[in-house]
Amino acid sequence: MPYFDTASSAPLHPVARQALQASLDEGWADPARLYREGRRAGLLLDAAREAAAEAVGCRPDELVFTPSGTYAVHSGMSGVLSGRRRVGGHVAVSAVEHSSVLHAASAHAAATGGTVTEVPVDRYGAVAPDTYAGVLREDTALACLQSANHEVGTEQPVAAVAEACRSRGVPLLVDAAQSLGWGPVGGAWSVLAASAHKWGGPAGVGLLAVRKGVRFAPQGPADERESGRAPGFQNIPAIVAAAASLRAVRAEAADEAARLRALVDRIRSRVPELVPDVEVVGDPELRLPHLVTFSCLYVDGEALLHELDRADFSVSSGSSCTSSTLTPSHVLRAMGVLSEGNVRVSLPLGTPEAEVDRFLEVLPGVVSGVRERLGAPASPAGRRAEGPSVTAAPVPADGSSLVVDALGRRCPIPVIELAKVFDEVPVGGTVTVLADDEAARLDIPAWCGMRGQEYLGERPADHGVAYVVRRVS
Amino acid sequence: MPYFDTASSAPLHPVARQALQASLDEGWADPARLYREGRRAGLLLDAAREAAAEAVGCRPDELVFTPSGTYAVHSGMSGVLSGRRRVGGHVAVSAVEHSSVLHAASAHAAATGGTVTEVPVDRYGAVAPDTYAGVLREDTALACLQSANHEVGTEQPVAAVAEACRSRGVPLLVDAAQSLGWGPVGGAWSVLAASAHKWGGPAGVGLLAVRKGVRFAPQGPADERESGRAPGFQNIPAIVAAAASLRAVRAEAADEAARLRALVDRIRSRVPELVPDVEVVGDPELRLPHLVTFSCLYVDGEALLHELDRADFSVSSGSSCTSSTLTPSHVLRAMGVLSEGNVRVSLPLGTPEAEVDRFLEVLPGVVSGVRERLGAPASPAGRRAEGPSVTAAPVPADGSSLVVDALGRRCPIPVIELAKVFDEVPVGGTVTVLADDEAARLDIPAWCGMRGQEYLGERPADHGVAYVVRRVS
Repeated sequence: MPYFDTASSAPLHPVARQALQASLDEGWADPARLYREGRRAGLLLDAAREAAAEAVGCRPDELVFTPSGTYAVHSGMSGVLSGRRRVGGHVAVSAVEHSSVLHAASAHAAATGGTVTEVPVDRYGAVAPDTYAGVLREDTALACLQSANHEVGTEQPVAAVAEACRSRGVPLLVDAAQSLGWGPVGGAWSVLAASAHKWGGPAGVGLLAVRKGVRFAPQGPADERESGRAPGFQNIPAIVAAAASLRAVRAEAADEAARLRALVDRIRSRVPELVPDVEVVGDPELRLPHLVTFSCLYVDGEALLHELDRADFSVSSGSSCTSSTLTPSHVLRAMGVLSEGNVRVSLPLGTPEAEVDRFLEVLPGVVSGVRERLGAPASPAGRRAEGPSVTAAPVPADGSSLVVDALGRRCPIPVIELAKVFDEVPVGGTVTVLADDEAARLDIPAWCGMRGQEYLGERPADHGVAYVVRRVS
Repeated sequence: MPYFDTASSAPLHPVARQALQASLDEGWADPARLYREGRRAGLLLDAAREAAAEAVGCRPDELVFTPSGTYAVHSGMSGVLSGRRRVGGHVAVSAVEHSSVLHAASAHAAATGGTVTEVPVDRYGAVAPDTYAGVLREDTALACLQSANHEVGTEQPVAAVAEACRSRGVPLLVDAAQSLGWGPVGGAWSVLAASAHKWGGPAGVGLLAVRKGVRFAPQGPADERESGRAPGFQNIPAIVAAAASLRAVRAEAADEAARLRALVDRIRSRVPELVPDVEVVGDPELRLPHLVTFSCLYVDGEALLHELDRADFSVSSGSSCTSSTLTPSHVLRAMGVLSEGNVRVSLPLGTPEAEVDRFLEVLPGVVSGVRERLGAPASPAGRRAEGPSVTAAPVPADGSSLVVDALGRRCPIPVIELAKVFDEVPVGGTVTVLADDEAARLDIPAWCGMRGQEYLGERPADHGVAYVVRRVS
């Protein structure tokens, strides 16, 4: 039963389980109390804080435990924004941050009238340090940048952005949720947030490190625990398990990174060979070792995940067709890449090579099965084998055009309908797709890029949007 | 090693431990995911929600899991206050609520300019329903009342206050942290908060129930989990353990309540017999079954707790002399009772009778040892045995007075100094105590009440405060 979604949540590491069970007897009392049960709990908490701080690369008194990574991000952002209120209300974030960062930035803007700048990313999903530096302003209270992207695995240039922030006196908050198990975050960051269940620790534990000297005003009702930065009774057994497992995964990180990197390289190279019309996204080199994302034309993401689940593979997707919100992943949108049939594979520690090979065996049949049921057109390669290439058609007079009505149809149908009729217009002619699924805005241009056709743009239509494509070959 | 501080945190219940361990393998994945690991986690979460809702007495879709009881209180209060912003910004709380409620009310006032009314309590620590009803106003957005007090165990008239609130259209939030393990909270409450580690569940789990129809606007950044009322990845193994242990403690609640009630009655009656100059506080009848609080004149709370810890008993205290804040418990202050030498005993489920008896054996020697080291005066009973009663002294002409300078001395020294010199003034004369320890404001009047002397009041002095006592016998 291969589980390939460790970026959502990792199975509990054996060391985490042992530490959790061992500390249930010693860690349940209130560490603020003076009696022996309280002192014992306090000692466990202190030791866990020291271990976690060492792994993060900060002082123990700079680190607090929060109930989740999300809480660490929210508390870290609101604390800096409030502490630096006099500087201004401007926040810079990359366009591909985790939703917890983006939502906290929106909440700040809504509550205080502050402004948010999203720094764009390249096609691999990375910000450019110069671009990031360019959005920092006199009134920038906070900059946020993830250490590595949670959907496509691309590493961000944190050290360079941190230096740009430092030289302008702007604190940088790094969301290290996806990378902290692999190693400390370098560079002169000011605030760091992470989440234990991403590295194999238990749920219920986040880390928030705030460097000395950063102006920080905890928000919300006063509370004495965790320096006022995370109110409520600490979950010490889970904290102990989090710290112990972070140490344990770090001890195996170098070897395991090399091994998983090779397995991910195999997926990156083999999937496009085995499955037609696939786009592998994210940086091929500067990336998390264990994570790879690809998108499949003419595929319904929900059906694909369902079929992979039936074939015993658990993966996730940034496709809108698997999400209740019906909007494709903001990460894929910011990168400008195909979103339909999107699959994220993130390998847990210890993933056997044979499971990856089995995934590569299973995937082509699963994708073609989903495509068949959707009535997707055959790939160009397939069609070439069946008859003369459509690119051999003579260039006709301009002006031929077709309109496809895909209103009310969900992704990937608009793109499938486009592909089905595309051969019917002559080279130089256009196909206009009427669609009201948000994914079409991303996937029709992406289809043009993959097919070498020309995307002419979109315009509002009576219902939905009209997307126009010119046939150039 | 008797642990008598279950009101701070209960040892993990065996059922909680079993449920936690059993669900570590099934409950680590993201319950929002469609694959089997996610579905399994989701099923565990659903089942826990149903079990917890049944124990609370609400619908499963009215209940969310939060990372702590504190978080449940904060989120519940801010959600109602924001949802009812148009009604007004007034909050009513009892004067003896848990600090999480009082701090959330203060934060609301500071952030929005809202106002807070503290409803006074009687000498047992209970609000009167009529008094509570009298503070509700046109602009009251929220009323808060604990089900039972966490320091003295007194039960509050929740059903009557809930009815008063209902008739005025004001939602009532009940902090049920101390009582939920003993039974559901009756009455037409609107919002309920609780904390699993108080009933023997694991840390890291709070409950927040919000009745349908209550206007509720979750605050903070948007998040899809737990109806937006508790952002962050759920800790499902801990949630499962919380729900399972709540069921388990409820199954034994009736028997165990009767048994512990008898043990607490024994403490309530025996302590004043065994230890001179003790005040047992809180309602003797309308109270939590397992909790009793008493205060000892002329005793330093920190020394007392330390000696009890050396004698293997873990208890807590609301004395200022054990707290970093140097202010005595706001609960004892609101009740107007003695705070010095304060001890709260809260018995865990299954406490053996022999442990309570042993506590009663040990306590007198511990208290007298602390008093001796502080140079405290002997008790009136003791003195009566030694010679003629001071109350037999002839009434002198008025005007005799003495001043005791206890500036810079911490509790219980000001009261000890008062007692030491008291016999030196004639009946009708006064003793003025100069003190700057906050506890004196509570403990000097309390001493007068216990000794049958007349407290004339306080006035500002050059340094600190002058407290004036008239000898009447």
